[in-house]
Amino acid sequence: MTSNTIRAIVVGGTGYTGAELLRLALGHPSIELVSVVGNTTAERPIAEVLPSLRGVFEGTVEPFDADAIAARADVAFCALPHAASAEVVSALRQRGLKVFDLSADFRFDDQAVYERLYGTHPVSELLSEAVYGLVELHREELKTADLVAVPGCYPTASTLGLAPLVKAGLIRREGIVVDAKSGVSGAGRGLSSATHYPETAEGVRAYEAGVHRHGPEIEQELSRLAGGAIHITFVPHLLPMTRGILATCYAEPAGSGSTPAICTEAARELYAGSPSVHVLDPGDHPDTLWVRGSNRVHVAYTQDPGSGKIIAMSAIDNLVKGAAGQALQCLNVRFGLEEGAGLGAPAEWP
Amino acid sequence: MTSNTIRAIVVGGTGYTGAELLRLALGHPSIELVSVVGNTTAERPIAEVLPSLRGVFEGTVEPFDADAIAARADVAFCALPHAASAEVVSALRQRGLKVFDLSADFRFDDQAVYERLYGTHPVSELLSEAVYGLVELHREELKTADLVAVPGCYPTASTLGLAPLVKAGLIRREGIVVDAKSGVSGAGRGLSSATHYPETAEGVRAYEAGVHRHGPEIEQELSRLAGGAIHITFVPHLLPMTRGILATCYAEPAGSGSTPAICTEAARELYAGSPSVHVLDPGDHPDTLWVRGSNRVHVAYTQDPGSGKIIAMSAIDNLVKGAAGQALQCLNVRFGLEEGAGLGAPAEWP
Amino acid sequence: MTSNTIRAIVVGGTGYTGAELLRLALGHPSIELVSVVGNTTAERPIAEVLPSLRGVFEGTVEPFDADAIAARADVAFCALPHAASAEVVSALRQRGLKVFDLSADFRFDDQAVYERLYGTHPVSELLSEAVYGLVELHREELKTADLVAVPGCYPTASTLGLAPLVKAGLIRREGIVVDAKSGVSGAGRGLSSATHYPETAEGVRAYEAGVHRHGPEIEQELSRLAGGAIHITFVPHLLPMTRGILATCYAEPAGSGSTPAICTEAARELYAGSPSVHVLDPGDHPDTLWVRGSNRVHVAYTQDPGSGKIIAMSAIDNLVKGAAGQALQCLNVRFGLEEGAGLGAPAEWP
Amino acid sequence: MTSNTIRAIVVGGTGYTGAELLRLALGHPSIELVSVVGNTTAERPIAEVLPSLRGVFEGTVEPFDADAIAARADVAFCALPHAASAEVVSALRQRGLKVFDLSADFRFDDQAVYERLYGTHPVSELLSEAVYGLVELHREELKTADLVAVPGCYPTASTLGLAPLVKAGLIRREGIVVDAKSGVSGAGRGLSSATHYPETAEGVRAYEAGVHRHGPEIEQELSRLAGGAIHITFVPHLLPMTRGILATCYAEPAGSGSTPAICTEAARELYAGSPSVHVLDPGDHPDTLWVRGSNRVHVAYTQDPGSGKIIAMSAIDNLVKGAAGQALQCLNVRFGLEEGAGLGAPAEWP
Repeated sequence: MTSNTIRAIVVGGTGYTGAELLRLALGHPSIELVSVVGNTTAERPIAEVLPSLRGVFEGTVEPFDADAIAARADVAFCALPHAASAEVVSALRQRGLKVFDLSADFRFDDQAVYERLYGTHPVSELLSEAVYGLVELHREELKTADLVAVPGCYPTASTLGLAPLVKAGLIRREGIVVDAKSGVSGAGRGLSSATHYPETAEGVRAYEAGVHRHGPEIEQELSRLAGGAIHITFVPHLLPMTRGILATCYAEPAGSGSTPAICTEAARELYAGSPSVHVLDPGDHPDTLWVRGSNRVHVAYTQDPGSGKIIAMSAIDNLVKGAAGQALQCLNVRFGLEEGAGLGAPAEWP
Repeated sequence: MTSNTIRAIVVGGTGYTGAELLRLALGHPSIELVSVVGNTTAERPIAEVLPSLRGVFEGTVEPFDADAIAARADVAFCALPHAASAEVVSALRQRGLKVFDLSADFRFDDQAVYERLYGTHPVSELLSEAVYGLVELHREELKTADLVAVPGCYPTASTLGLAPLVKAGLIRREGIVVDAKSGVSGAGRGLSSATHYPETAEGVRAYEAGVHRHGPEIEQELSRLAGGAIHITFVPHLLPMTRGILATCYAEPAGSGSTPAICTEAARELYAGSPSVHVLDPGDHPDTLWVRGSNRVHVAYTQDPGSGKIIAMSAIDNLVKGAAGQALQCLNVRFGLEEGAGLGAPAEWP
Repeated sequence: MTSNTIRAIVVGGTGYTGAELLRLALGHPSIELVSVVGNTTAERPIAEVLPSLRGVFEGTVEPFDADAIAARADVAFCALPHAASAEVVSALRQRGLKVFDLSADFRFDDQAVYERLYGTHPVSELLSEAVYGLVELHREELKTADLVAVPGCYPTASTLGLAPLVKAGLIRREGIVVDAKSGVSGAGRGLSSATHYPETAEGVRAYEAGVHRHGPEIEQELSRLAGGAIHITFVPHLLPMTRGILATCYAEPAGSGSTPAICTEAARELYAGSPSVHVLDPGDHPDTLWVRGSNRVHVAYTQDPGSGKIIAMSAIDNLVKGAAGQALQCLNVRFGLEEGAGLGAPAEWP
Repeated sequence: MTSNTIRAIVVGGTGYTGAELLRLALGHPSIELVSVVGNTTAERPIAEVLPSLRGVFEGTVEPFDADAIAARADVAFCALPHAASAEVVSALRQRGLKVFDLSADFRFDDQAVYERLYGTHPVSELLSEAVYGLVELHREELKTADLVAVPGCYPTASTLGLAPLVKAGLIRREGIVVDAKSGVSGAGRGLSSATHYPETAEGVRAYEAGVHRHGPEIEQELSRLAGGAIHITFVPHLLPMTRGILATCYAEPAGSGSTPAICTEAARELYAGSPSVHVLDPGDHPDTLWVRGSNRVHVAYTQDPGSGKIIAMSAIDNLVKGAAGQALQCLNVRFGLEEGAGLGAPAEWP
């Protein structure tokens, strides 16, 4: 730790994203983790709530107190449910903290889209301040952002797979399909029969097919890149594994020049300065196991020789590049650190 | 066992499909299992090769001998690799056995398609005799078929999901995408790093995206139903589970009448006399765990409200309805038995 | 179905044991399943509560009504929590039904042991009537039993592994250790963080080490066989799999004659007329996957050459031989049917 | 990297232990990874063999050349099979490299024990030089060791659980049982039906019960601590998970003073200066998921109230504290670095 140390607090630090924020923050060369806040677990030892921290990180979970936080921290990571998060973010922004929010509350440019999906926005006046925290597409704006809306896990995987094609005009805007496969940790720590081990292992199912709230988030980013409205068909699936998202994306080629080689080239160009993204050769297939536990993204492109459809595949760890790692990546950019500081570890494979 | 007992032999009975054929044949009210043939495991005790049969089914694996088989059996189930299977099927057909072949060798009407995918056909003269063993679509022809080409696991799931839509003209023929998710047993008992536990658990990946050999098999059946050529984009994925296939299919509606309710209705009509198929209500999502170990198919239909795309979802157990169970279902139809004889058990859930 | 059909009802039929009772009862040649009772799910369609029954078994869950049950059923399977079960059993016994109870309520000869573990017994007057439903050890008494206390899953696996050694006096009574490994379905359908997929997959842990309530149940049966008190050290573990129990048991040999061959011989003798049990050769290791979904038990014996300790290993499916299958096996014995009627299927392997 | 950088090479770097050595070495503040050696994969890109390193670590696998290695490296980590490793170690020691060997070749004080288990020792003259690399028990000797025999995964978990009890004389030397449960990665990258996904998922089995080669390694260390011969009964099990070892150990108390509290106290005393070990409170049960991916050890002690048996439970990640992490921990001690340098990360939970 040096005089440049960034004092950070994690609000809502006792779910899976919170656990991962703690793990990464503890290993980050420029972050001092000052406290963990969680109302439902307040006053309990952190290591009791998060068993991986036994013997690693002492102290108790604190109840939320904006003034107390402001006195000790420079930045806050908020890993709370939507709406609840907005209130906390507002209180912390008023006290001058830079905030990296992992909820949906500040991800949408268009308040109406947010409110259709999530209900009335508690602090819509902050929407204009927020920058969407997908570093690979918003690096410049993030350098000065004081409120960062860290994207969801599905949008991260899906958008990064499709972005090079949309940006380079290699696919048509209509008819894009994103078939996404997620590990169970993406559903969080809340209990449900859908995530009860015996009813989850050894089975796969789609859920909220066509109507999941992450669809519009992907559309916002792709439309921005395309300079025009893009609608996608988005179907998430729950898989019997803990971590990982694979997005398999299908799109019509814009023309005969949209070969896998050209798509791959476009991705390598777009991600040239992006240390987290690795573009595989055409013919390779990303595997979420290859990025498990890391902040890395593997993307690859191929084509159906019969129909000509372009197939983009993108793999991430939902809790790292899809949540906690991405938040730290945003912090790195915001504070002028190496973008990959504290995030350079490869996957724990196997 | 009655005088109507059907004496059956399983050739290639020591892989996963073979094991499942034995399990189901042993529980079938009209089948007498006379022997198990397998050249690589010949002379070994069956229960040593298939540990679930210890104390259940005695005897040793026999080497292949067409005459010896013909002397004792009425029907043969062949669960061999392609090309090898064709030779065996030919020898058994010459000796008058009815054959249910689980390889790819007799699935294609068009020899050229087969040979493009699998190489020269060893006994192409038998192709015209074979009937495609997807009972729900070929029930009448199967009643007199002496050579049945039991479909692959992916085609079974995919075709049954899409067939009602294609048959009723509810979707457009162009642009169909089938994103299929499979358990690892579909890859068989052969060892590879792709199916080595540590490199398979906790990860998901596509493979042979757009070029898998099951794509043309699905196209053949859908084209037959449509009365015209249909090309699909087919991408299989390997999931960390042992059994199950979920096919998520995306198609453009043929018109505004193609609602989920109408699609569901079309499926219920097509499958009205099909005891293996259950059509869920719109909004439900099939789960492969719900059919695991059974010969059942769960299908459901929904629609993306934004793009209008129809989403068909279809779940089976790849080793049962996708292989061994389907073979017995064909036998039931061929011999005038109840179609569901020996196949009525629900899934082992959970 | 014949005039000998046994009309059965399942009370508490909407948990995992209930689901398995339904699956097995539906496939049993002499049972007519007349209804499913469950108070918390009353009036809901059975197939909504148990998704594997969609299209297989129609009807709605009924609330408990002893008179209504007595009017329609000959036997009841009760799969309720302890104490709640005793009340229901009492009401049904008063109305003349034969009852197969899967709770702990009637498993103990000694009321004091029960009450130390589970609290005051609601209907202790019925204790003397109950027969412990481990067929392999109580076959004769079960032939006339009207109230059967079906054993727990851990006691079934553990007792069947150790019984031949205790009965033949091959091991010492002191110092026996049972290290048991269970799949998650044994914990039932109730939600808890301990069985939430992300906190269960990819980890193993002991629980209630040395103090689990199934220890005394095992001790009761072993003591009965030994003709004197036996205490065991029992430690259960939760493993990342849905089904299966493996009991690894360690005991001091009673003398130099207690070789693996002699132990194996003793087991084969004890289980000679028991169709569910298969005794592997010395040197083999049972695998729960080899019995998954079946009513089978695999046991094997070996010895540590250094210390001389005898190692008994026993594998079952906790929901079948450890619960529902065992209940049907008891019914078969009680009604003079083939002991393996409806239970002959080998495991679904893999 | 500073002038104190340690130049390291990994020989046999393309298996799972090698992959983990690379991951940890790349994140270590004082190690410069100069090359990866592997004869069977020589000349292939490292990132092709180890897919988690795509975009992270370039270069190709080198064939083994002792002189070339000596010219560039100060230390070597050898992750080769036994016997093969000894030859390589000898060549590198002759050239002055410090060697951390992860094979069994230098773990035994007694050549006769080694040769009984593994065959003739290729370079037995080096045995006297080697120090057993279990830091918590050999820290002082490791400070000057030039050849470190890094323990196996089972011995690490088992020995660390039992050591405090043996050292403090809290348990009797006779009759100790170690029932160990391992994830599949412990079996390495070699293919076998025992580790083929469909035959591994959803099942558990013991293997080499009582005769596994890690038993004598545990006995050596416990006997050393006890000052007299200790024999244990050691039974390993394969579980359906990728990483983790849980050792459940059973022992007779030496007297009435051997309570869980006293055992816990003894462990906290022994491990007071050991940053990797965390001793849970009595009543807690370690979970391998809580240490997955970390170099941490969780141990806990309880007692069976009936028999008085002491139960020690110990959880590690087999690839980290059971292999690669432990090797780096040894290097840290050898070079006078912080013992936990590069090893401080908590588990990736969940």
